[in-house]
Amino acid sequence: MFAVIFRAKPGVQDSQYIETVTKMRDLAFEKYGCLDFVAVTEGDQEIAISYWQSELAIKRWKSDAEHTLAQDLGRAKWYESYIVQVVEIKREYKYNL
Amino acid sequence: MFAVIFRAKPGVQDSQYIETVTKMRDLAFEKYGCLDFVAVTEGDQEIAISYWQSELAIKRWKSDAEHTLAQDLGRAKWYESYIVQVVEIKREYKYNL
Repeated sequence: MFAVIFRAKPGVQDSQYIETVTKMRDLAFEKYGCLDFVAVTEGDQEIAISYWQSELAIKRWKSDAEHTLAQDLGRAKWYESYIVQVVEIKREYKYNL
Repeated sequence: MFAVIFRAKPGVQDSQYIETVTKMRDLAFEKYGCLDFVAVTEGDQEIAISYWQSELAIKRWKSDAEHTLAQDLGRAKWYESYIVQVVEIKREYKYNL
């Protein structure tokens, strides 16, 4: 399994931002096979992680036309800075899950 | 580069918890070569990510005696549940960093 770690410093997050996040999340699950998504924000730090079956699914999602537009808007106003890390999950262990 | 994603639902986090987190963080950096550490909590969701040069460094850190004790206390009271994912970073890209 693969994941995309998104760590960001939020910028100006208006109502269009909220709408877009919801839309992008639905699109990722419904059209690109996103397996799971978690996002946590505290102060000026956001961490979001999405999970995927393959790197190909991640590449397809990254180049989706609506998602590309959302990424452009993200850089233009919603995020001051961010880092995206594509990772492969080597092993995992759980407690009480 | 490798990372450890820790996603948790906090339990009862007392003053000993705060002390232990600080101590463990210092130990990870000073003795085990941890490269970076970020942690974000919102409501009942915590995500923390630590970064490492190798899987061996992660294994050594996991089995450190003080860290093992901290993990035991984590399960006993500080966390209701958690998942740990050891990942390899395949590629990354940055905006404004």
